[in-house]
Amino acid sequence: MAQPRVVVLVTGSELVRGDRRDANGPFLAAELSRLGLEPARVVIVGDRPEDLSSVLREGLQVDLCVVSGGLGPTHDDRTVEVLAAAAGTSLVVDGDLERQIEEFSRGIAERLGRPYADFAAGVRKQASLPEGAVSLGLAGSAPALLLEREGRVVVVLPGPPAELRRLWPSALEHPAVKAIVERAQPPQRRVLRFFGPSESAVARALAEAGGEHDGLEVTVCARDLEIHVDVFSGEGGDESASALVGRLRSAFPEELFALDDERGVEEIVLEACRSEGLTLATAESCTGGMIGVRLTDVPGSSEVYLGGVIAYSDDVKRRELDVPDEVLQQHGAVSAETAAAMAQGARVRFAADIAVSVTGIAGPGGGTHEKPVGLVYIAVESSRGMAARSGVLPGDREAIRVRATALALHLLRTVVTQSATHVRDHAV
Amino acid sequence: MAQPRVVVLVTGSELVRGDRRDANGPFLAAELSRLGLEPARVVIVGDRPEDLSSVLREGLQVDLCVVSGGLGPTHDDRTVEVLAAAAGTSLVVDGDLERQIEEFSRGIAERLGRPYADFAAGVRKQASLPEGAVSLGLAGSAPALLLEREGRVVVVLPGPPAELRRLWPSALEHPAVKAIVERAQPPQRRVLRFFGPSESAVARALAEAGGEHDGLEVTVCARDLEIHVDVFSGEGGDESASALVGRLRSAFPEELFALDDERGVEEIVLEACRSEGLTLATAESCTGGMIGVRLTDVPGSSEVYLGGVIAYSDDVKRRELDVPDEVLQQHGAVSAETAAAMAQGARVRFAADIAVSVTGIAGPGGGTHEKPVGLVYIAVESSRGMAARSGVLPGDREAIRVRATALALHLLRTVVTQSATHVRDHAV
Repeated sequence: MAQPRVVVLVTGSELVRGDRRDANGPFLAAELSRLGLEPARVVIVGDRPEDLSSVLREGLQVDLCVVSGGLGPTHDDRTVEVLAAAAGTSLVVDGDLERQIEEFSRGIAERLGRPYADFAAGVRKQASLPEGAVSLGLAGSAPALLLEREGRVVVVLPGPPAELRRLWPSALEHPAVKAIVERAQPPQRRVLRFFGPSESAVARALAEAGGEHDGLEVTVCARDLEIHVDVFSGEGGDESASALVGRLRSAFPEELFALDDERGVEEIVLEACRSEGLTLATAESCTGGMIGVRLTDVPGSSEVYLGGVIAYSDDVKRRELDVPDEVLQQHGAVSAETAAAMAQGARVRFAADIAVSVTGIAGPGGGTHEKPVGLVYIAVESSRGMAARSGVLPGDREAIRVRATALALHLLRTVVTQSATHVRDHAV
Repeated sequence: MAQPRVVVLVTGSELVRGDRRDANGPFLAAELSRLGLEPARVVIVGDRPEDLSSVLREGLQVDLCVVSGGLGPTHDDRTVEVLAAAAGTSLVVDGDLERQIEEFSRGIAERLGRPYADFAAGVRKQASLPEGAVSLGLAGSAPALLLEREGRVVVVLPGPPAELRRLWPSALEHPAVKAIVERAQPPQRRVLRFFGPSESAVARALAEAGGEHDGLEVTVCARDLEIHVDVFSGEGGDESASALVGRLRSAFPEELFALDDERGVEEIVLEACRSEGLTLATAESCTGGMIGVRLTDVPGSSEVYLGGVIAYSDDVKRRELDVPDEVLQQHGAVSAETAAAMAQGARVRFAADIAVSVTGIAGPGGGTHEKPVGLVYIAVESSRGMAARSGVLPGDREAIRVRATALALHLLRTVVTQSATHVRDHAV
């Protein structure tokens, strides 16, 4: 039997106007691909009924169509009504669903001190489903729904990314979706993540290791200074995939840091610290809190991460991180010396086992010939000593900040996992 | 004459697998919308010939189709060959183009110390265009091209975002594209941004104000606790659009905070502070640095923003923000009292005019019956006094953190813009 044909439809006028970057398409595409259901296309469409209708009619032609957005209470949330028309059915109010949405909305009305009358029409609208569709549960006031037509399945999820992600597992549990997933033949996937080599160095090593052969599909992708290599193999390709992975591993033994993409570098750092009972602090200038945000994105990070100082002004570097005035005057705020003093200051102030610091010039202004935009200094200070890195990072302000954050987290990783080895060596 | 019909096609297998987020679709969509050519859809498609072929055939049916990607020298860069087949023409080598690409490639070969023979096949491939197509110039070795078929236009641009942006202006200068742009009637757009009312309340006010009538198109979008309303009007719709906007403004006079979407709330805060010569500091617990990141996303924020403390542990709240032990013991780390003490501490420590603090429970763990996941307390401390807010925010860990950050920035905005009025009142 042929692989099931899948499309993803993302709705929202703000997206076809480029006012906003879509997060749901990539999430759904990655989830579906993981299950062997790589979408043939991801279509972003506005809220105009005629545009929406034509893509939903196409969606009804494939095995599985996953739609995001257009489930809200306002008049321009039209997915359900347009889907019903495209499928040739009518809308019916689902009584159970109406009660659930009403309960939720009464809570909101109370909290906002607004009359429930503000919400009543929206509740009825949100509880209306195409005849024959089933609710997949609620996130906020928006329901997810599933419609089966002649063996083809349409799943509609709410547009806000957090709500979509919350309800996606219910879609996967529905028997109609399960049946499609079972028909898929997910390729074996092996992942290598490197930090250090350039994309072209990895591409060359890949070619020398045999490249794409025997039905192997290999993709190389650079992301936040990491290089991700995916090796996909079909039936019977297991051995050649293993051999290829082995050759790539031995090409960059030092730079390989993960064989899965389950955990970001911040999670690797936090786990290594947790297993050693180490605590962490941060001292950030040009990244403005990004390292703190990456670390605290991880639930339970408070066991390891104590906090940090965002030392944007020189005065704060002096007062809150005890960077000596002489250091700032002699070397400047963007210097290896200041980075080292910031890390030391944070470590002492926060009584942390390890502290990391970043100082740099994110631009667009502030660069000079000697200290250009993109120049960053990073330092890690720990009971096992000091590590430092510097470089001129390419890209615009955002890219420089994101990359400086990645560089800092990888320097932390190196220190933490090396010290782990160090401790293990002693234990042995 | 009807508005020209436009689609954007973005190619790349890494995009349909969700390995990477597309930047070209939003760029092109925003550029086209600005010209009154809002795309009917943005389609992301992989490199498989059959998928690519079907979307390119659709692209040949509309007035203008802008394609990104698949112009490189390797076997999986297939846009040109598939486009030629879809248009029913053959590929021909463009002699001028070949010479330009050869010149560029000889330079690369020399720099890498490789024989030019390595490049020759790729150069010939990249210089091959569908018969009748014209080159729009080169970025690196990849050309942009334009193909006209029966009054319809396809523009193909390179996939790397910097190259695409470099060649886009050449596409706009081509007479065939100019003719389409001239046919477009960019709608008048009016924007209202509210903070406070629910999406349903805005929907109700909109309906009461007359809703979409007389050719008005209105979209309502909730984003990080803000409600954005866009009112589009065509020719002759100016008056009714103004009237609708006026009615919406008077429905939520307090909650309206912007009449454009040029600036995020963090920029509004920074500008208000700058114009008053006020400085800012932050004290963040559950948001882990997100307020700092939002503020420092803005170039030049260092004029206003001094820095902050990420006070993730209680100890840091005591030591680095001088939160009294009694406050923490009596009220807990997540309390209005702790939030107030954090803001006071940050203001004094950083010698800032204004400080904002956030403390809360982002989850998924750590919630109790009295203090559930999502509970946040926010305080602003300034020379003009204190403001505070609290609430239970819905969503997962990320959504709670993002919303708490938005809440904090809006509380700052209220304080800063109120104090601005206050000062102006005195001046008058």
